[in-house]
Amino acid sequence: MTQLALIILAAGKGTRMKSDLPKVLHPVAGAPLVVHAMLAVEALEPAATIVVAGHGADLVERAAHGHDPDARIVLQAEQRGTAHAVDRARGALEQFDGDVIVLYGDTPFIRPETMTEMLDARRGGADVVVLGFEAEQPGKYGRLVTNGDVLERIVEAKDASAEELAITLCNSGVICADRATLFDLIAQVGDDNAAGEYYLTDIIGLASGAGMRCAVVTCPEEETLGINSRAELARAEAIWQARRRHEAMENGATLTAPDTVFFAHDTHIGADVLIEPHVIFGPGVTVENGATLRAFSHLEGCHVSDGAVIGPYARLRPDAEIGPDARIGNFVEIKKAVIGEGAKVNHLSYIGDAEIGAGANIGAGTITCNYDGVLKHETRIGAGAFIGSNTALVAPVEVGEGAVVAAGSTITADVPGGGLAIARSRQDTKPGQGARLREALLARKAADT
Amino acid sequence: MTQLALIILAAGKGTRMKSDLPKVLHPVAGAPLVVHAMLAVEALEPAATIVVAGHGADLVERAAHGHDPDARIVLQAEQRGTAHAVDRARGALEQFDGDVIVLYGDTPFIRPETMTEMLDARRGGADVVVLGFEAEQPGKYGRLVTNGDVLERIVEAKDASAEELAITLCNSGVICADRATLFDLIAQVGDDNAAGEYYLTDIIGLASGAGMRCAVVTCPEEETLGINSRAELARAEAIWQARRRHEAMENGATLTAPDTVFFAHDTHIGADVLIEPHVIFGPGVTVENGATLRAFSHLEGCHVSDGAVIGPYARLRPDAEIGPDARIGNFVEIKKAVIGEGAKVNHLSYIGDAEIGAGANIGAGTITCNYDGVLKHETRIGAGAFIGSNTALVAPVEVGEGAVVAAGSTITADVPGGGLAIARSRQDTKPGQGARLREALLARKAADT
Amino acid sequence: MTQLALIILAAGKGTRMKSDLPKVLHPVAGAPLVVHAMLAVEALEPAATIVVAGHGADLVERAAHGHDPDARIVLQAEQRGTAHAVDRARGALEQFDGDVIVLYGDTPFIRPETMTEMLDARRGGADVVVLGFEAEQPGKYGRLVTNGDVLERIVEAKDASAEELAITLCNSGVICADRATLFDLIAQVGDDNAAGEYYLTDIIGLASGAGMRCAVVTCPEEETLGINSRAELARAEAIWQARRRHEAMENGATLTAPDTVFFAHDTHIGADVLIEPHVIFGPGVTVENGATLRAFSHLEGCHVSDGAVIGPYARLRPDAEIGPDARIGNFVEIKKAVIGEGAKVNHLSYIGDAEIGAGANIGAGTITCNYDGVLKHETRIGAGAFIGSNTALVAPVEVGEGAVVAAGSTITADVPGGGLAIARSRQDTKPGQGARLREALLARKAADT
Repeated sequence: MTQLALIILAAGKGTRMKSDLPKVLHPVAGAPLVVHAMLAVEALEPAATIVVAGHGADLVERAAHGHDPDARIVLQAEQRGTAHAVDRARGALEQFDGDVIVLYGDTPFIRPETMTEMLDARRGGADVVVLGFEAEQPGKYGRLVTNGDVLERIVEAKDASAEELAITLCNSGVICADRATLFDLIAQVGDDNAAGEYYLTDIIGLASGAGMRCAVVTCPEEETLGINSRAELARAEAIWQARRRHEAMENGATLTAPDTVFFAHDTHIGADVLIEPHVIFGPGVTVENGATLRAFSHLEGCHVSDGAVIGPYARLRPDAEIGPDARIGNFVEIKKAVIGEGAKVNHLSYIGDAEIGAGANIGAGTITCNYDGVLKHETRIGAGAFIGSNTALVAPVEVGEGAVVAAGSTITADVPGGGLAIARSRQDTKPGQGARLREALLARKAADT
Repeated sequence: MTQLALIILAAGKGTRMKSDLPKVLHPVAGAPLVVHAMLAVEALEPAATIVVAGHGADLVERAAHGHDPDARIVLQAEQRGTAHAVDRARGALEQFDGDVIVLYGDTPFIRPETMTEMLDARRGGADVVVLGFEAEQPGKYGRLVTNGDVLERIVEAKDASAEELAITLCNSGVICADRATLFDLIAQVGDDNAAGEYYLTDIIGLASGAGMRCAVVTCPEEETLGINSRAELARAEAIWQARRRHEAMENGATLTAPDTVFFAHDTHIGADVLIEPHVIFGPGVTVENGATLRAFSHLEGCHVSDGAVIGPYARLRPDAEIGPDARIGNFVEIKKAVIGEGAKVNHLSYIGDAEIGAGANIGAGTITCNYDGVLKHETRIGAGAFIGSNTALVAPVEVGEGAVVAAGSTITADVPGGGLAIARSRQDTKPGQGARLREALLARKAADT
Repeated sequence: MTQLALIILAAGKGTRMKSDLPKVLHPVAGAPLVVHAMLAVEALEPAATIVVAGHGADLVERAAHGHDPDARIVLQAEQRGTAHAVDRARGALEQFDGDVIVLYGDTPFIRPETMTEMLDARRGGADVVVLGFEAEQPGKYGRLVTNGDVLERIVEAKDASAEELAITLCNSGVICADRATLFDLIAQVGDDNAAGEYYLTDIIGLASGAGMRCAVVTCPEEETLGINSRAELARAEAIWQARRRHEAMENGATLTAPDTVFFAHDTHIGADVLIEPHVIFGPGVTVENGATLRAFSHLEGCHVSDGAVIGPYARLRPDAEIGPDARIGNFVEIKKAVIGEGAKVNHLSYIGDAEIGAGANIGAGTITCNYDGVLKHETRIGAGAFIGSNTALVAPVEVGEGAVVAAGSTITADVPGGGLAIARSRQDTKPGQGARLREALLARKAADT
């Protein structure tokens, strides 16, 4: 089969974003826009991905490599039009034999199915395939002038006749062609226009003129939405989230209030998962069938097993691994920790760099003291252990199976299985002294004022 | 007066829910759908309630009994149509003399007023009363063919003539009839149709044929909405919440951002209550006039008195009883505890199985250690007591009126009224040692890498 | 230049609010409605502001003075119409020479630009200027009968002819006139109408009759929205928030989910600020460029410097001053405290009345014990200090630069720079005792039941 290469144009600054961050790095669903473009073609297994970067090219490179270490970044130092940008990829693809799709780094909604259709059209015999859409308000979009199945040319709105302006089939800018054809045509594109730029669009006229066959594949207008401002970014996020919520419900999750739940691009949610209002997913979360995520919970980079109940107000951070039927309660933070089956961490606790055995009970206000200011250390709690409330566990430390730690203790040494540890001070109770203290304080306050 | 019996059809699996839970047990506003059906008729004080269960009948029974212990559950082992389902209730109602309403367990929006109208129509002389609605898009709904006041028959869409298809008055499936009439008619229903099922709808034709009078009562289409998917469940929740929020505002509560507040089916909110954004109510909450619920608070099974201020980030759990002008602050959990008038629990505390006297001040990070791994124990704090920050109170324990507990103490013995208790270690301060420790750790880290 | 005086009518009870609070004190964006009216004219620098109060006049006075201590409150003891209300301000403005604008305390949306236009029209030669709007549904609004540029009279809907009812230009009630003219006209207004009230509207007819020139300035209907119920209050809040969110995005902030973010009337947000879902601003917050506000955070009266990362679940209270690149993490409350550059308070802590030096690390569960029940005391932590987890700092107390406090300590005495402090108990570990304790408890439980 012919191979596929992907060129993503990602050099723009995005002035209307009013940002120091390059436009294509602004995130939707926790992933930069440029990664969404990569995801759109991922199912087609491109043999090569070229990202044409300009503004903040090093940041763009890092983001692209974060998703695909094999992506190649080429620099467009000056922004001289889309054809000029694609031409930057010429060298990188010199050895490549196959089809090329040109996508945009600020257009996150194109679906893999649409990309497949374009490729099918190309392989069905069209020399150049353009992605078009029926525009509700064609306005300033370029119009696709067709003759039956054949795309004859693309007319910019400002150059269009009245008849052409009546056309509603518009140009998305996404193009597919054989590598050699693409770069041959691009080499012929000129900059003889008002902006003095090289337009990728011009290759259609050149191709038609050379007797090649150009075709159109269409998609819903929504897929072609580009992002030029923070408001459009927010709208894109909203569209993405609405799709994803619907999908989660279709797959058998209950979302009490879908509009208040925010997924990341890679969230996995099982069936019969209950998600209460106001729950947020950062990247890297998997929730198994039958788990419950209560209100105000925040999860990222973690795994929640079946039957576990999380929250309300639980924060699961990267490498939190929550076992089946475990219970993570309110105002609890879990980071890089394995919580065993049926274990409970119900109230006001911080568990980091730890392993909690099955069925262990961690009392309210328990803190794993995992950091000494320089290094991180581990805490291990055995199965069935009971950690009394308001306990500090100074890592590295181990509490054995079935051991008991008395409430209010600061534990610095290991506790053997079945053992009891207590580390707290003797209580000194002084009758009458509380009242006298209060009087003294009130007297001082009165003196102060 | 004639008595009323209620039959709720609740046997369906709800395949499109993709759930192990029977469809009628999915919740809206914290109550299973089947309970909403029971609530719709509650004001009419039915003498008997029969729930026809099938899939997950034991779970359905538990839910129905949770709301009304006198509800009777009958089993429809095989699903052979609505008439077949109603017929399962025949035995349970053998001794019953009066009217019967047949409702659906997945239709939570029918209002009590509508049920009253049906009953009035029945008692006004109609033998069988059907609940109809004017459908915006009649589509596949059965059409109600009327002649003046009289319902002549119900025609399924697929069997309807063009003229009949133009009818917009459609069948909700809800039916009311005298017990004897209902079961006599049902006995005549056949299964000679494509699906081989017994349809309740058929009793209208049978009744008309027998010279009985059938009538229609209508309600808005919204009331008849059934729930077949998670998306429909979410939409039902949204409709329910919108109604309830409006009601709360009409009654004199301020909801800064109504769309972010979620009530339960039985929430009581007084006048001049301020509810900030992002507040959630589980079942069983009463909030008195003049209380303030700040953002990100979560309440269930609790009572908040006038003038109390809750949150932000307060979690009130079952049997939290918050006194007048008390103050529950951020990251505070209260469970099974009475908080006295004007008492303050402002920061990062867990108060469970406790009684806090009027005007007491509970410092930041206070934990009642109420659980020893097996049993729960009580903490009592007297009026005007002062509990210093980061204190653990190991229950059972009592701190008397006006007593003072020093910050950082673990209290294991009772403190008399006006007394002072302190239970902390002497501080050991070693000049220069901190810097040396840091150096040693950094050296170790350097050696490790 | 002619001076400007502002009269705000704020005497109404607002019966439909069902509230003990006067209507004009209900808040939008954290400021009472009456303050929004003051804000609308603030840019025009009025020389005098008169608030006509009635119901709850003392509360209204306090709110008005909270915003502008020079505002003058006059009492309208009896509510006898808008002209009667304006007339209450006659004495207060006796010495004033200039123009007067009459606004309403329950109409928070009029923009400063609209006020400027009215004043321009007045100073351009109109004797009386009325603010009108094109009503979508004119219904019961008074109609503005114009002849070219000239406003001839205002007709109440109930007195209007069919021809007049067809007019869609309606009366907002806002009026501008020279002080002397205004009060002369008001003196002529009678109460010979069904309600027996004195209507401000009547001055237009009187002015026209006296040969004066009346003019209309128009604004979008939205600006003239009054608030009469809690539902309208919520809608006003929603409109205000939508405007403000859009503005923040236009200025270069990213709002992942704008609909879940709530600003206050005076929030300042820089460029490249990221605001995740579910973030709330109380009054008095400034967030500098490049800061990140993570989900579920709540800020009021605080300042966040560039590069700082706040939340999730962070609560910043008044006088929290967060330095550049500082990090405030989950379940952390900061009140009246300066957090130095790059310092970290990441987990489950309460920091109040404190100063934390640059680069200091505050461990999980740290509590500043700032209150002794009567007085507040300060905690000072030097730059680069390390406070171990679960530490209580009993103020007044100072930890020097680079000092180390061992986890689980209650610190009551100062720690010198570079020193080490430890204040915890020796651990007592008893093999086998934990298992025996558990058995004893289980036995007791069995005996109890």
